[in-house]
Amino acid sequence: MEQIAMIGCGSMGGGMALLFAENGVSVSLSDPAEDMMDSVIEKAEKAGYHNKMKKFKDYKSLCHSLSQPRLLVFSLPHGNVGDKVLEGLIPNLSRNDIILDCGNEHFENTERRQEKCKEPGIRYIGCGVSGGYQAARAGPSMCPGGDESALNEVLPLLQNVAAKDKDGKSCVGIVGLGGSGHYVKMIHNDIEHGMMSAISEAWGIMRKMGLGYEAIGDVFATWNDSGELKGTFLVSIGADLSHKREPGTVSDSHPSSSNHPLVISEVLDKVVQDITGEEGTGIWSNTETIEQHIPAFTLNVAHGFRLASAYRSAREKANQTFSGGFPPQNLDIYDKDSFIEDLRKATYVACLASFIQGMDTIAAADRAHEWNINYAEVWQIWRAGCIIQADYISDSILAPVLNAPKANYSTINLLTTDAAAKDVRNCYPSLRRIVAKAVETDQVAPALSTTLEYFKVVTGTDLPTSFYEAELDYFGSHMFDKKGDQDKQVKQPMEGKHHFEWKPATSQTEVYGKAGSML
Amino acid sequence: MEQIAMIGCGSMGGGMALLFAENGVSVSLSDPAEDMMDSVIEKAEKAGYHNKMKKFKDYKSLCHSLSQPRLLVFSLPHGNVGDKVLEGLIPNLSRNDIILDCGNEHFENTERRQEKCKEPGIRYIGCGVSGGYQAARAGPSMCPGGDESALNEVLPLLQNVAAKDKDGKSCVGIVGLGGSGHYVKMIHNDIEHGMMSAISEAWGIMRKMGLGYEAIGDVFATWNDSGELKGTFLVSIGADLSHKREPGTVSDSHPSSSNHPLVISEVLDKVVQDITGEEGTGIWSNTETIEQHIPAFTLNVAHGFRLASAYRSAREKANQTFSGGFPPQNLDIYDKDSFIEDLRKATYVACLASFIQGMDTIAAADRAHEWNINYAEVWQIWRAGCIIQADYISDSILAPVLNAPKANYSTINLLTTDAAAKDVRNCYPSLRRIVAKAVETDQVAPALSTTLEYFKVVTGTDLPTSFYEAELDYFGSHMFDKKGDQDKQVKQPMEGKHHFEWKPATSQTEVYGKAGSML
Repeated sequence: MEQIAMIGCGSMGGGMALLFAENGVSVSLSDPAEDMMDSVIEKAEKAGYHNKMKKFKDYKSLCHSLSQPRLLVFSLPHGNVGDKVLEGLIPNLSRNDIILDCGNEHFENTERRQEKCKEPGIRYIGCGVSGGYQAARAGPSMCPGGDESALNEVLPLLQNVAAKDKDGKSCVGIVGLGGSGHYVKMIHNDIEHGMMSAISEAWGIMRKMGLGYEAIGDVFATWNDSGELKGTFLVSIGADLSHKREPGTVSDSHPSSSNHPLVISEVLDKVVQDITGEEGTGIWSNTETIEQHIPAFTLNVAHGFRLASAYRSAREKANQTFSGGFPPQNLDIYDKDSFIEDLRKATYVACLASFIQGMDTIAAADRAHEWNINYAEVWQIWRAGCIIQADYISDSILAPVLNAPKANYSTINLLTTDAAAKDVRNCYPSLRRIVAKAVETDQVAPALSTTLEYFKVVTGTDLPTSFYEAELDYFGSHMFDKKGDQDKQVKQPMEGKHHFEWKPATSQTEVYGKAGSML
Repeated sequence: MEQIAMIGCGSMGGGMALLFAENGVSVSLSDPAEDMMDSVIEKAEKAGYHNKMKKFKDYKSLCHSLSQPRLLVFSLPHGNVGDKVLEGLIPNLSRNDIILDCGNEHFENTERRQEKCKEPGIRYIGCGVSGGYQAARAGPSMCPGGDESALNEVLPLLQNVAAKDKDGKSCVGIVGLGGSGHYVKMIHNDIEHGMMSAISEAWGIMRKMGLGYEAIGDVFATWNDSGELKGTFLVSIGADLSHKREPGTVSDSHPSSSNHPLVISEVLDKVVQDITGEEGTGIWSNTETIEQHIPAFTLNVAHGFRLASAYRSAREKANQTFSGGFPPQNLDIYDKDSFIEDLRKATYVACLASFIQGMDTIAAADRAHEWNINYAEVWQIWRAGCIIQADYISDSILAPVLNAPKANYSTINLLTTDAAAKDVRNCYPSLRRIVAKAVETDQVAPALSTTLEYFKVVTGTDLPTSFYEAELDYFGSHMFDKKGDQDKQVKQPMEGKHHFEWKPATSQTEVYGKAGSML
């Protein structure tokens, strides 16, 4: 395809427009803010992509500028905006035109629009795009799902623009039917947040060990170089950002000589994106873990952690009422290297737990929606360019499961793979030591500590939930299974066969002495 | 009202039908299973409520049996069933008739039906009913919301049948508009689960201390007698159930003399209610904490704990792959009394955290839906008869906030009340000791340990989320606030004002050496 429309020219859409132009594609721009379009055109000219961009102020001329079948790329905020744009476009489109929705759209919206597009014969692809604005410009990880004929038509173009892994393979592929592309991207974002929470907690703990900002960056650089966190994007940018100073810094090679403050030292501890509504994936994905009945300890608590952080005023008030709360104490660690090694392993298993919980959610949704997800493609899409890029996890944990011939993840569980089990067993003592120290000294470690509980629970065969179940049967007649039961259902999440009459129901008169009407 | 219809004669509906009859009300029964109706009628006759029950097989005769305005009570499974019943009833109803939906219905279904009932002039009340089947029979806690005129008409009857608190006051009241009654009950169930998780974890820890089932029951009885867990229903039934033996037990006064096994010793560790679909509140309420942007660490992890427990087969497989997993070690505690006292305080703060998180969710939904919730009534409804009855928490923590004149909880937060802060500060060292020991010895303690993190985070003013925010700004240009910022927005969950260009976007050619099209 030699020409496309880019609808939405924000930091992601603008970056992708330039990327398409860089690949020789003519791009017709559409955005309600004309200055956004002008800015993209200016950048294209500067970069030498001459006459590759043109702006349009109405859908008629925009659609008229494209040869058929048209390809229109959306880079829009989620929700109503896309519906309105689609409404405006449809009268100007023709059968077999393709819309490639590259926003973070809720998969149900995607599927609703796919349905709406059926009658006019427009093919609507939901395509998750990951990697942030830098990757949008240089080559993002792309996760498209929907109509297979349309996907096959756009794939060559996407393969050109997508990120490339270390073997030069493009990080794009046909994920599956319906809204599966947006779904997988949504869960990608949830995994991202589980990882980011763990990394941030490790950062906080190192701060309390007395490490300077830049020294922590150096630790992250080491973690990113080898071992279980090798090639982890969120660790690598953590290393990079730790050295950045406010403008005026003279030299990158002697950053400490600068008097300008490190930017990280100034950032307030407030993550608001789930609440402002601009970003929906955090809310949707955590809701989905619940809808799909997946125990997602790490992902859920990372979400709660972000939410709590956003209410700065409430935290300040509570801090006062609690006479200063329970701030982390300074950590006096004798063998710092060994402790940091424990911290690395603890961070890794929390990242691994995030992948396990995310993959379980995708697999459950795949079964429920019959998306026929191609897990080898998911694996390839996450190889590079995306925020959850994690080379070691990809190579050692995911590849044997996802990239195997005829891999059918929906019948597998990472927790029953030897590679994951070996690593978790190997790192568990480190995680336990880190969490123990965090508990003892009030370090903030929700994702790390919940990950510890997660592995205990999901591998446990004698949980205290037997008491829980007894209580439910006591008042709710919920039915329970017995330890010796041999039937098939006893292994499944199905209602038990026994009820014990712990406390028979008695009348109001027996309980209160007389019926209420006489009170 | 001297006559009502009871639609749905299961354990809850049947119990309530008997309770109404005991209060002199004539009850017209309706249930697709005739034997269920027969069983209720038989029980009524046995109890001496002669000629108070009559069964009906069609809606026409059922409605015909009632004088106007009719009162029809629903005790139905959530979802479609209620819609179908309503559909069948409407042609047989008259203006001003009242439906009192006493099931665990999703508040959105309730509000949809309220809307549907407007045109025919039927008044639909969503009424949460708590206390299990024993309370349904003897007097439940009732939580109705909806049309005020209808509520005022049914209130005298509900006051007769509802549970009575220790002062003889009925545990029922007008909660608010729309679906607020069902909403508050839904969150009640979530609080219930946070508490039950903590109590079960305490039970598991005591098991590993070597305490026998009955000895643990005795500890729970002591906890229920005085202190911060005084009058806590879930603790009291925990005490009671710990002594129950399989049929054949000779004497309650010498239970240990029996050879019959204790029932609790046989119960499998599988809690399935969130997955089988019979009970929706666990899923809805945890989804709602997310929808309402409430950090609900304890509630969410308790939900995940139940989910994980349900997959018995998956846990067994993982246990094998993990060579036995990480089972709790036996606990060799020197000063058992002091450790159990710590455990009591830890359990209490997890229960308190559950209340805080639940109340925050209700308040946020109240603001969003403009239900005008009367918090003093919520307080009264939870005084007795319900599963989350907790006398100390009610008297000492909730009363000053909820039962105060003109209490407007939607502008308050329990975390900023002196009573809660005092207790949490007092119990925090105990919670920390328990979680530290649990971590060290692999005890299963998700709700307890997550509660510890919760209090650190929500009272913290220097969280490691500053690093999290920097990472988001790095790749997502998410914007951040700075520590010194003085504007009003900085305290609120609103987008920050600063973006730092940590890593400028560069072209595909700069990153990969050449544009993708040339690869």
